[in-house]
Amino acid sequence: MPVNAAESPLARLPTPSLLLEQQRMDRNIARLTDHLGRLGTTLRPHLKTTKSVDIARRVMVSPSGPATVSTLKEAEEFAAAGVRDILYAVGIAPAKLDRAIALRRSGVDLSIVVDNIDQARAVAAKCRELKISLPTLIEIDSDGHRAGIQPGDPLLVEIARVLQEGGADPRGIMTHAGGSYDARSEAQLIAAAEQERAEAVKCAEQLRAAGFASPVVSVGSTPTAHFARDLTGVTEVRAGVFVFFDLVMAGIGVCSIDDIAISVLSSVIGHQPSKNQILVDAGWMAMSRDRGTANQPVDQFYGLVCDAAGRPYPDLIMRYANQEHGVLELRPGSTAKLPDLPVGSLVRILPNHACATSAQHSHYNVILDGQVVAKWPRIQPGW
Amino acid sequence: MPVNAAESPLARLPTPSLLLEQQRMDRNIARLTDHLGRLGTTLRPHLKTTKSVDIARRVMVSPSGPATVSTLKEAEEFAAAGVRDILYAVGIAPAKLDRAIALRRSGVDLSIVVDNIDQARAVAAKCRELKISLPTLIEIDSDGHRAGIQPGDPLLVEIARVLQEGGADPRGIMTHAGGSYDARSEAQLIAAAEQERAEAVKCAEQLRAAGFASPVVSVGSTPTAHFARDLTGVTEVRAGVFVFFDLVMAGIGVCSIDDIAISVLSSVIGHQPSKNQILVDAGWMAMSRDRGTANQPVDQFYGLVCDAAGRPYPDLIMRYANQEHGVLELRPGSTAKLPDLPVGSLVRILPNHACATSAQHSHYNVILDGQVVAKWPRIQPGW
Repeated sequence: MPVNAAESPLARLPTPSLLLEQQRMDRNIARLTDHLGRLGTTLRPHLKTTKSVDIARRVMVSPSGPATVSTLKEAEEFAAAGVRDILYAVGIAPAKLDRAIALRRSGVDLSIVVDNIDQARAVAAKCRELKISLPTLIEIDSDGHRAGIQPGDPLLVEIARVLQEGGADPRGIMTHAGGSYDARSEAQLIAAAEQERAEAVKCAEQLRAAGFASPVVSVGSTPTAHFARDLTGVTEVRAGVFVFFDLVMAGIGVCSIDDIAISVLSSVIGHQPSKNQILVDAGWMAMSRDRGTANQPVDQFYGLVCDAAGRPYPDLIMRYANQEHGVLELRPGSTAKLPDLPVGSLVRILPNHACATSAQHSHYNVILDGQVVAKWPRIQPGW
Repeated sequence: MPVNAAESPLARLPTPSLLLEQQRMDRNIARLTDHLGRLGTTLRPHLKTTKSVDIARRVMVSPSGPATVSTLKEAEEFAAAGVRDILYAVGIAPAKLDRAIALRRSGVDLSIVVDNIDQARAVAAKCRELKISLPTLIEIDSDGHRAGIQPGDPLLVEIARVLQEGGADPRGIMTHAGGSYDARSEAQLIAAAEQERAEAVKCAEQLRAAGFASPVVSVGSTPTAHFARDLTGVTEVRAGVFVFFDLVMAGIGVCSIDDIAISVLSSVIGHQPSKNQILVDAGWMAMSRDRGTANQPVDQFYGLVCDAAGRPYPDLIMRYANQEHGVLELRPGSTAKLPDLPVGSLVRILPNHACATSAQHSHYNVILDGQVVAKWPRIQPGW
């Protein structure tokens, strides 16, 4: 049944608005925390997905962390909210070192990441100049996905040596199994998790054999975090998107559609009956341009459409997105019936990629039992 | 020559940062304004691209407008900055009428858009209830692209009648030739512009024949605005992205690469030598996920890479984008040489879609003769 704006408890929200189902989020957090607890390791949640102090406090082990961030601005904002143990998990640009050091001087145990000798030299030179230590993880490339040195490369030890000689603190290994997003079966997910673990542990042992204690072995991605069966040798796991989940994660098989905690509330503004299209007031500005399911077995286009209560309509997707227009259609080849959604009807659209969609919004409208119970701000955009 | 951060006047900016070349922007604005002046019509610039009061004042005919917006939030923000003649160019959701009326009561000549009988009835009912008038354009679908009623449909006159009977003010016709983005030659662009004009004028005549004065005939898209050869019967032209231009517009042939006024400044943070990849600290959070050139003859992936002074490197593109990582590669099949860009080098990345990329940033760093001369804020994100 379509829900008319006037009949829904969400009717007071402007459209588009970002909704967050609190119970789903709490369940997602508990699921991963419990799983990692059983495997005897700690979660260092990646706060780049939610960029919210309210949510960070629900997902971190303690109000002071540990936590992972993707920008120094996130680090500064979460530090201001009391987080004290932060990993900045993107290889550092030398020009950012002063800002990282300022954070450490404010009392935050910020650690940084390098994956090449030039970065290591820049970190070492800065430590030498300022007579400080700077905890640094060395990133390795456990699956050929993105950044990091190749496992087995003697460069690993050379980087640790350069860091140590400058007075920096080579704390260990980090890796991110981004390749796990291409997994298409439980067996592949389990294998991706084991590969991430094994390569990271092997590199940590290489460092230890060369005399570096390397107390930290940090791995993580949402798929591998959930499908790891053994984390021997790993000291912490990073994951971010699991708090909300999304259509990409459902397509990989890490969650079900019913686990997706965020959606975009939107109003129907028109129809193109000859094309079986419904127009809504959420376009890419509200959904993002992310098309992460485009190469998955089920392409969700710009998102899967649900009624105002959050129940998916069969095969109804956002087929096209302009800045402030979305065009809804049945999935190509579907035999479902286009729902009757008069102008003014409210729909919710599940996103491909929770990080990208939530980044388009200033706050979360927190939903509990169908009511808006809170507004949680995201930290300001920018770097 | 790669420019090291320390040697560039841009070195004080954090990376990633959004740059705006003022002279290019001024030239782009002058080009379209002059063209439309020669054709005897007025520009009603679409402010959704720039979302900047500073830029709005440079592109509008006067500080009070006219202007076009894509959200009521934009309307409110620009109204607060003195704009008095605003078209909200997305078909209105009935729940937004009160907010639109509040803006009119504050002294803004806001006009709205409808394209179906349900919207028209909602507008009419509101006007009747409040004993007010509400200037309304009826959107027509001049090229099968998105919203709007089909030219020739008797519904057009019925909508005007419903509006008028309620006391609303059916002011005329609006259309947007979004299909012009698929044009691939000058002849096709000229034809798209003439089709947009002809269909809009024909519909206005249909309304006039039925007794509606229809003083406004509003058309526009950046491609058709530039390639219109005759605008007889058109009273105003809307366009937005031309202020900045982008790789999509260059791919269509509306501008050259040298006209693109915005770019994202980024730092090199690493390399994958075995894959001929350069890693930078701008990912999709800085570039957006827009892949608007993916189906053009030249795919620019996530953007075209230039040196710190803005000169493109041959065939160097952002091949992959994660949230805060970009992976640069030579275009597939290129015989160019990968430039030597050590860690810490600065690059500028030209975007596929200026609206989407600038929406990822809080402000413009205005560049004149290689120096940062101003910071112009964007209006706050949201609706």
